[in-house]
Amino acid sequence: MMEKVDTYPIYVEPFHVDFTGHIFMGVLGNHLLNAAGNHSQRRGWGIGALNESSHTWVLSRLSIEMTELPCQYEHIEIKTWVESVIKLFTNRNFAIQRPDGTPLGYARSTWAMIDMTTRKPCDLLSLYDGDILRYVVDEADNVCPIAGHGRFRFRNAEKVRSIHTYYSDVDINGHINSIKYIEHILDLFPRERFEQQSLRRLEIAYKAEAYMGDTLCFYQQPVSEDEMDIEVRKNDNETVCQAKICFKKHTL
Amino acid sequence: MMEKVDTYPIYVEPFHVDFTGHIFMGVLGNHLLNAAGNHSQRRGWGIGALNESSHTWVLSRLSIEMTELPCQYEHIEIKTWVESVIKLFTNRNFAIQRPDGTPLGYARSTWAMIDMTTRKPCDLLSLYDGDILRYVVDEADNVCPIAGHGRFRFRNAEKVRSIHTYYSDVDINGHINSIKYIEHILDLFPRERFEQQSLRRLEIAYKAEAYMGDTLCFYQQPVSEDEMDIEVRKNDNETVCQAKICFKKHTL
Repeated sequence: MMEKVDTYPIYVEPFHVDFTGHIFMGVLGNHLLNAAGNHSQRRGWGIGALNESSHTWVLSRLSIEMTELPCQYEHIEIKTWVESVIKLFTNRNFAIQRPDGTPLGYARSTWAMIDMTTRKPCDLLSLYDGDILRYVVDEADNVCPIAGHGRFRFRNAEKVRSIHTYYSDVDINGHINSIKYIEHILDLFPRERFEQQSLRRLEIAYKAEAYMGDTLCFYQQPVSEDEMDIEVRKNDNETVCQAKICFKKHTL
Repeated sequence: MMEKVDTYPIYVEPFHVDFTGHIFMGVLGNHLLNAAGNHSQRRGWGIGALNESSHTWVLSRLSIEMTELPCQYEHIEIKTWVESVIKLFTNRNFAIQRPDGTPLGYARSTWAMIDMTTRKPCDLLSLYDGDILRYVVDEADNVCPIAGHGRFRFRNAEKVRSIHTYYSDVDINGHINSIKYIEHILDLFPRERFEQQSLRRLEIAYKAEAYMGDTLCFYQQPVSEDEMDIEVRKNDNETVCQAKICFKKHTL
């Protein structure tokens, strides 16, 4: 029987680190999504197999929390597994660690499966006779000591930037790439922020698709000195995604 | 004795392809630069070793010409070798191919080595007693059937866009990342261009560094229906880089 947890080796490339020498959170997010894709594919639940029956995975939430961001030239590992399946959603967790097992951080993600024709979510438990339940890990193996996805409440968010979207922003489906939102959101912060603090946690909730040519408007709502909520709206009305960015003081 | 040509396997990841399903030219460029870095490092000429003696490589020119751009999930190979060393510059070539040897394209690059204290170029032939010459390939192995880097003449270029630069644009040196220029340049073209045509060739000449917070202005000068020259200036005066983008009609 196939193991329920996969481990993927990752090398931190030189152009994938920021000016402080640490991996970009967007690049790390990309590695997590690749690990998720590969883990699913090895179990017959990959995009390729699903597309044949007109289904596809849609990322709904992603929360990453790091005690330490790896540096240029480091070799790290990403472990991933399915935590649970709750009818219309499945929760997948990740551990990011050094090859010797030292934890660097963890991540949580929530996915829906949609029917590509109707764009409606599917009951994961009834698909393929509940096959997905075979891949849910035992509770003892679900080691992911970070908070779950939080809720967002935007009351007095201030519009701080609007940008156009171009060729490099879109993925193979013509949608603005999930990772590009993370880049654009982190681009709202000035250089000094990254000089004085490290990224500790990023949460993002994907609400609707945007397309090449859409204008994205960014609304900021400070929560505390170290925490900022951000809402992204397309063409200044529909909410596309919501994010929370938490910084911490540098530790030596 | 060490082989003079290295071969690096590359996997085309799902988030690394454009909306047509083909690898982004910027991502391909990143793979080329990684291959160059690894090839140098294996021979004692990597950034790490050089930094210890206050030297570093600076990319001056990059020209990539593809007959076919690989697609999502494809496995490809990048071969790289040193073509020549001419005192202040070295030329490094690349072949991009399928694992069965089918060529997809080629690339040429030109590099200078600078002294990090004086920022002046060094005589590559006198460094380490001309050690670098040991890695220049025999003429028969230098198979790179694409044109060399061309010259740029901007006479009536029109300013088409200006953008600010942010956190995601800069590399570990605090410079705007060489690859990000490629992304911003390709973002000048509308969706229809990529729907109707494929990228055939990209040439870029790096002239000066720009930094986070600089404004980049893009000037376009059409050469023919399929060819566009682009100059990037920082803060609307100093030339940062110049590029030529060549498209071709789709072939089935």
